[in-house]
Amino acid sequence: MASELHFRKGKPGAAPGVEYDEIQKLPSGTSPVYVSCIDYSQDQVLVQDVDDLKGFLAQHRPEWSAVRWINVDGLTDMEVIHALAAKYQLHPLAVEDLIKIPERPKVESIGGSDSELQTRLFIIARMLQIDDGQLQNEQVSIFLGHKTVLTFQENRGDVWDPIRQRIQRKGSRLRLNDASFLVYALLDAIVDHCFPILEYYGDRLEELEDLVLSDPQRTTISAIHKIKRELLLLRRAAWPMREVISILHKEPHECMSDVTRIYLRDIYDHIVQIIDIIETYRELANDLTETYISSVSNRMNEVMKVLTVIGSIFIPLTFLAGVYGMNFHYFPELDKAWGYPAFWAVCVVLSGTLLVIFHRRGWL
Amino acid sequence: MASELHFRKGKPGAAPGVEYDEIQKLPSGTSPVYVSCIDYSQDQVLVQDVDDLKGFLAQHRPEWSAVRWINVDGLTDMEVIHALAAKYQLHPLAVEDLIKIPERPKVESIGGSDSELQTRLFIIARMLQIDDGQLQNEQVSIFLGHKTVLTFQENRGDVWDPIRQRIQRKGSRLRLNDASFLVYALLDAIVDHCFPILEYYGDRLEELEDLVLSDPQRTTISAIHKIKRELLLLRRAAWPMREVISILHKEPHECMSDVTRIYLRDIYDHIVQIIDIIETYRELANDLTETYISSVSNRMNEVMKVLTVIGSIFIPLTFLAGVYGMNFHYFPELDKAWGYPAFWAVCVVLSGTLLVIFHRRGWL
Amino acid sequence: MASELHFRKGKPGAAPGVEYDEIQKLPSGTSPVYVSCIDYSQDQVLVQDVDDLKGFLAQHRPEWSAVRWINVDGLTDMEVIHALAAKYQLHPLAVEDLIKIPERPKVESIGGSDSELQTRLFIIARMLQIDDGQLQNEQVSIFLGHKTVLTFQENRGDVWDPIRQRIQRKGSRLRLNDASFLVYALLDAIVDHCFPILEYYGDRLEELEDLVLSDPQRTTISAIHKIKRELLLLRRAAWPMREVISILHKEPHECMSDVTRIYLRDIYDHIVQIIDIIETYRELANDLTETYISSVSNRMNEVMKVLTVIGSIFIPLTFLAGVYGMNFHYFPELDKAWGYPAFWAVCVVLSGTLLVIFHRRGWL
Amino acid sequence: MASELHFRKGKPGAAPGVEYDEIQKLPSGTSPVYVSCIDYSQDQVLVQDVDDLKGFLAQHRPEWSAVRWINVDGLTDMEVIHALAAKYQLHPLAVEDLIKIPERPKVESIGGSDSELQTRLFIIARMLQIDDGQLQNEQVSIFLGHKTVLTFQENRGDVWDPIRQRIQRKGSRLRLNDASFLVYALLDAIVDHCFPILEYYGDRLEELEDLVLSDPQRTTISAIHKIKRELLLLRRAAWPMREVISILHKEPHECMSDVTRIYLRDIYDHIVQIIDIIETYRELANDLTETYISSVSNRMNEVMKVLTVIGSIFIPLTFLAGVYGMNFHYFPELDKAWGYPAFWAVCVVLSGTLLVIFHRRGWL
Amino acid sequence: MASELHFRKGKPGAAPGVEYDEIQKLPSGTSPVYVSCIDYSQDQVLVQDVDDLKGFLAQHRPEWSAVRWINVDGLTDMEVIHALAAKYQLHPLAVEDLIKIPERPKVESIGGSDSELQTRLFIIARMLQIDDGQLQNEQVSIFLGHKTVLTFQENRGDVWDPIRQRIQRKGSRLRLNDASFLVYALLDAIVDHCFPILEYYGDRLEELEDLVLSDPQRTTISAIHKIKRELLLLRRAAWPMREVISILHKEPHECMSDVTRIYLRDIYDHIVQIIDIIETYRELANDLTETYISSVSNRMNEVMKVLTVIGSIFIPLTFLAGVYGMNFHYFPELDKAWGYPAFWAVCVVLSGTLLVIFHRRGWL
Repeated sequence: MASELHFRKGKPGAAPGVEYDEIQKLPSGTSPVYVSCIDYSQDQVLVQDVDDLKGFLAQHRPEWSAVRWINVDGLTDMEVIHALAAKYQLHPLAVEDLIKIPERPKVESIGGSDSELQTRLFIIARMLQIDDGQLQNEQVSIFLGHKTVLTFQENRGDVWDPIRQRIQRKGSRLRLNDASFLVYALLDAIVDHCFPILEYYGDRLEELEDLVLSDPQRTTISAIHKIKRELLLLRRAAWPMREVISILHKEPHECMSDVTRIYLRDIYDHIVQIIDIIETYRELANDLTETYISSVSNRMNEVMKVLTVIGSIFIPLTFLAGVYGMNFHYFPELDKAWGYPAFWAVCVVLSGTLLVIFHRRGWL
Repeated sequence: MASELHFRKGKPGAAPGVEYDEIQKLPSGTSPVYVSCIDYSQDQVLVQDVDDLKGFLAQHRPEWSAVRWINVDGLTDMEVIHALAAKYQLHPLAVEDLIKIPERPKVESIGGSDSELQTRLFIIARMLQIDDGQLQNEQVSIFLGHKTVLTFQENRGDVWDPIRQRIQRKGSRLRLNDASFLVYALLDAIVDHCFPILEYYGDRLEELEDLVLSDPQRTTISAIHKIKRELLLLRRAAWPMREVISILHKEPHECMSDVTRIYLRDIYDHIVQIIDIIETYRELANDLTETYISSVSNRMNEVMKVLTVIGSIFIPLTFLAGVYGMNFHYFPELDKAWGYPAFWAVCVVLSGTLLVIFHRRGWL
Repeated sequence: MASELHFRKGKPGAAPGVEYDEIQKLPSGTSPVYVSCIDYSQDQVLVQDVDDLKGFLAQHRPEWSAVRWINVDGLTDMEVIHALAAKYQLHPLAVEDLIKIPERPKVESIGGSDSELQTRLFIIARMLQIDDGQLQNEQVSIFLGHKTVLTFQENRGDVWDPIRQRIQRKGSRLRLNDASFLVYALLDAIVDHCFPILEYYGDRLEELEDLVLSDPQRTTISAIHKIKRELLLLRRAAWPMREVISILHKEPHECMSDVTRIYLRDIYDHIVQIIDIIETYRELANDLTETYISSVSNRMNEVMKVLTVIGSIFIPLTFLAGVYGMNFHYFPELDKAWGYPAFWAVCVVLSGTLLVIFHRRGWL
Repeated sequence: MASELHFRKGKPGAAPGVEYDEIQKLPSGTSPVYVSCIDYSQDQVLVQDVDDLKGFLAQHRPEWSAVRWINVDGLTDMEVIHALAAKYQLHPLAVEDLIKIPERPKVESIGGSDSELQTRLFIIARMLQIDDGQLQNEQVSIFLGHKTVLTFQENRGDVWDPIRQRIQRKGSRLRLNDASFLVYALLDAIVDHCFPILEYYGDRLEELEDLVLSDPQRTTISAIHKIKRELLLLRRAAWPMREVISILHKEPHECMSDVTRIYLRDIYDHIVQIIDIIETYRELANDLTETYISSVSNRMNEVMKVLTVIGSIFIPLTFLAGVYGMNFHYFPELDKAWGYPAFWAVCVVLSGTLLVIFHRRGWL
Repeated sequence: MASELHFRKGKPGAAPGVEYDEIQKLPSGTSPVYVSCIDYSQDQVLVQDVDDLKGFLAQHRPEWSAVRWINVDGLTDMEVIHALAAKYQLHPLAVEDLIKIPERPKVESIGGSDSELQTRLFIIARMLQIDDGQLQNEQVSIFLGHKTVLTFQENRGDVWDPIRQRIQRKGSRLRLNDASFLVYALLDAIVDHCFPILEYYGDRLEELEDLVLSDPQRTTISAIHKIKRELLLLRRAAWPMREVISILHKEPHECMSDVTRIYLRDIYDHIVQIIDIIETYRELANDLTETYISSVSNRMNEVMKVLTVIGSIFIPLTFLAGVYGMNFHYFPELDKAWGYPAFWAVCVVLSGTLLVIFHRRGWL
């Protein structure tokens, strides 16, 4: 089973949510954590790699900054998460979801008028990548405020480099729009990245199909099984993503601009198409197993026919040869001159008759 | 896997939508593009093949023209698409859907009172054809305005020639109605064209059924697999078409006349019937695989019975013949005169007994 | 595939609906068409076989006639259909559905206050019959007006003779009620006629079950496949009939009296029960295929055990006999007096040991 | 197929419903019919076996009687049904459902303010019992009025004896409540009686599971098939019962007291649990067939391995022995003294090599 | 079948619900029952093991106690249940559900303004644990009042020790909140405890997958069957738990504080994720059976190929050797000097040809 099915959940029965002061007490991992920050407005862009997060958060953002996007690669340094959670007032339950992966993709509105916390949209998504033929599966957590976007990834390396380039390009639609449009672009990149993955699986299915029909091997069935398992994982990521996009598209939220919501419709169409294709692939893969069994049965049938035809002809003849190899003293046929030719005649007639019968049954 | 499952999507993470000025920058293909225009009203028709699109669009349409239908065959010339998108104010997201095929069939209302763009209905449909036993699958994009219909196809050749003829015929219902009725007629032709396709698959299933029951071959199972895969593709085209027609039929839109909406009910009935038949065929095809496995198992059983009957009778007899072929010096039976006849008697009794047993078990 | 899956649809792209004047231009078939008319009220009945339809339609109906039922057997004479369509103002789309069979069962309200046509309920149903072990499947189109019922069948012969008799019987509930009650009775007869069909399939399944478990033949699997295919067809007829009855029962319509709608509840219960039974039969039939495969596997296993037991015992013994049949000049055992008895002793011990082993494995 | 799938429906096309005067004309069966009546109130109980139904119905019930429960065992005496139908004004369609079994479980409100008939709730339920390992399946029809409960069963013997005892016990909740509470108790007994049935099937599945895994026989597969068929019948009885209870629980009715409706919630929970268990059993039974096939395949594999190992070793050796049994005059090896020992050496080396190969492949 | 499928229901037809005075009459079991009580408020905690329940219930709770949680381990002592039912006015139907296990997880609101009983939420949940590789499955009944929580478990030992510790810890969120928050924490512990169980099954599936693909044994298929059965039980516990949590989260109730309802959303996300994973595991397990059958078929095919190749080569050769072992007096070949070498030449050519043929067919 792939490691995607294992959990880094808290101990059952532990307290729900993670308070700010508790975060720091959690054991930090050793792998490095990278924080970067991009501020942009219609006219200006500033990209910073943040090494001293505390100092950075203590400063105010530049006045011209219309959108600030802070991206964190790595969830192991609890100091970093604590600092951001405290600064941006992230809800304890959201922080728990952020740390205790894997969580199911979902969207939640946090805070707002009745609450002491600021309104935020909290989105959990899955970022899928094919790496060396392995399906990689990373959790991405996104907090959207009015002018700020926080993103948390498990590992370095993502599908967002084209977005970073588009932010740099003056006049791009990203620069002209607000923070929610950035979130749209991030989700769009995640969703669109499924198409090359699907293409990869389409190619694999095509290869397997050829193998199953032309030369079914023992390795073929384990390849089919593997592809089915990965399609199950893909599907388990895609269905809740569809829910997430649908909620973002349909339910108004104060952090989500109307323009962005129109564009979300486009992602929704894509995710529906992706689910369609996953389900089609799953049916094709299921059918491949049946075709494999059919194909193996058919081949076994052919093998058996050969054995049966040869056995049915020669086993009786061998018996006959055995008979005339017996050493009985009284054995009239052996003395006749016609004995040996007659033996061959019987053999030819017998095997000829059987060949005709087998031919009629379609075994030849 | 059929090429229908491959994508010509944009690079993931690219900017959403295609602006007018961006269209021209996209790489154009080399295959030729044909544009034709039909203007008609109750009394007059004008059919033009458009070679110089820019010049053509610069002119006003004839005053008498009640409906203008511009059809584009081929999506490779970005100049053409740019010119039409600019003239008819097509939404960037719609232009993207138009170019980046395959897109899932859908219907969208674009523009309207709140928007700077004119109201249009944007419909994506799939046009299915059987060509040389291969299921062909082409995306058709339709823009419906108040008096204008734009259609974009991937390749030349379509199912709409009867409609062109009906437009020419004075007094035909097409001539008496508005632009939305033309769209209805176009969709009706696309949907009704599925019936001959279904008939083709019905005939193929019938042939395969005969083969499976009378003479299951290795090629039979790959034919069943192929038909299942194509029915999956058909179904993936039909279900969203049903949604499209249902939305057009049920949701009022200012470009869609009431008369047309009554007629759309008829397409809806047809597409539901088509889906019914596809699902029935799919179940029949699934059942064929099981029947194939049953049939092969049964045949293998028959083959095995023959081998077993012949083996069970002659293997012991051959042993017996072998025994009396041994060269032991002390071998009392060999000297008896009744030895050889007794041997045959034993053989007859033994094989007779086995034949009775096998007959009772139903193996003969 | 059964002919039920073939279509007599119009050419794709043809004009939608069939106008009155177009009907006559359609090619008429040669098979004869029978028209009959029954007028009845509480007190009087008049049954007529109509030969001269034009003359008949020109006359007014008798004043006492509360309900007029015109039944047409055969859809090949376009003159007849034209005459009735013109007289009773049938909608072009309905006429198309009537002629271009098979159409999916459905119910539609035509005409009414906003329309120039009179209000009618247009119902398409499937009449199923078992004929010589073949499932027959005929389309019935019913038009219900305030005082008139038109019925169109593909062929002569139907399930409505008991209704004709009940109309003749004075005081029967049919005579006391209106035209919609007649339609109820017609639909009730069609639906109730499914019970003997289901009983037929129940008996067939029972026979097949016995065959599968006692003596699975090659013909058995094709019989199972055939029954599955016919249950699919039954189901494809029953589900839309359920929709039709449900709509008639639940949605008020001016041609449908309240009394009739109460009775429709009864048909609804029956059609739900029929669908229940069809689904149960389908599951039983699916299970039969699996049981068949299991049963064949089991039998093959038994066959293989016999071959293996006999082969495993006698093949080594035959080798041994072969050894002592060799002609080596130096062959010490052959000269011993105990050679031959020792050979038999070895054979008995060897085969005895193997028999014990096989017995322990449960192969005997 | 079990007889539960056969119908005692009327002739298709017959008149709907059965009027009071028609009941008597229906053919009566010969099996005896038992009618009993229990009147009770908080303080008094009277149990009567009714032999003279007409006389009995002519009398008024005792004034103190709060609830009268008339139970009819046997549906063959049309006089009895006519007398009760006339006395308690049962609707013709309800009488038809009562007589023409099997009917699907359902609940209907009959009569009321707009009707000339008195309000009644008409309930059809299925009473399931295991008798001698056979699933028995009886239709129970219940009419609930304000102070009267009529129940009709197909055969004598039911699951209601504990209820009769509870009515006798002064102060029991049945005695304190109204007629609808009696109906609740009757339905509760019917539903709760499914638990021992489920336990029976649970035990059967457990036995079959052991058999399939340890020693799959030909009878095992028919036992699995039988259990699947009976679970299908159980399910077909349970799902509509769930609907019936749900409607009784949720929809207020003047014959149904509020107290009773709270208690109905409890039956609803039980029927949902029963359906849960049936579905679980069905999945387990389906899985058993697959496990059976797997198990048989595996055993066949083992059988084949033995045959192949023995065949592969001894068939070549027998050939070799045959070679040296040939009678060629020029045959150099036969004269050598080392010939015979060399033969054995070759045999030992050859079979040893093969044994090593087979061992490596895991066939030993 | 696991004992989880057996029932300790009452006798069918028995009176519904259990009145207070009836409880004491029920037969008590012999296993000991443990009652403990925890009172806590923001500032104080008191933990008591209750031996003398009657005396304990006669006292008032401490004034400072904000929440009293009484936990009962063991349902066998009817005195205990009677005492608590009488003291806390538990509804007879709830008491019945409590005693007569297994009941389906559910939530019910009992009592309230219209009733003589106090308002309570009555929740039935399943607590799952893996013990020695066996899935243990215990029913937990929870009564939530305004300031009181009663919990009943079947056996001693639960998943709530971390909660008991958190209650002891001053300032923990449990101490700051009301009784409904305690119920949330209890349910959260039960639900989160499913993750280690799922991890256990994930590991088992992984092991089985390796076995199926590398070395399918007879024990493998029974292990797959066992895991499928346990996943069915898991699922049967998880789906109604999802309903329970959903109702608690969505429907306001006077005993349930708003704060708690926000936290319930978190459990809901977890239970949905658990169901997702169970369904994924079920599909993987189903696929394993198919892969097992494929794998066994493939292996059988390999075995058959070996037998067929060896048989096809040596059976004809043995016949030939047998021929020249015959003792006919007239046998020309035997006298030739080239006879014996020619025999070997024929053997080599024949077997070489067959090897080439088999190689081409891919059997080698």
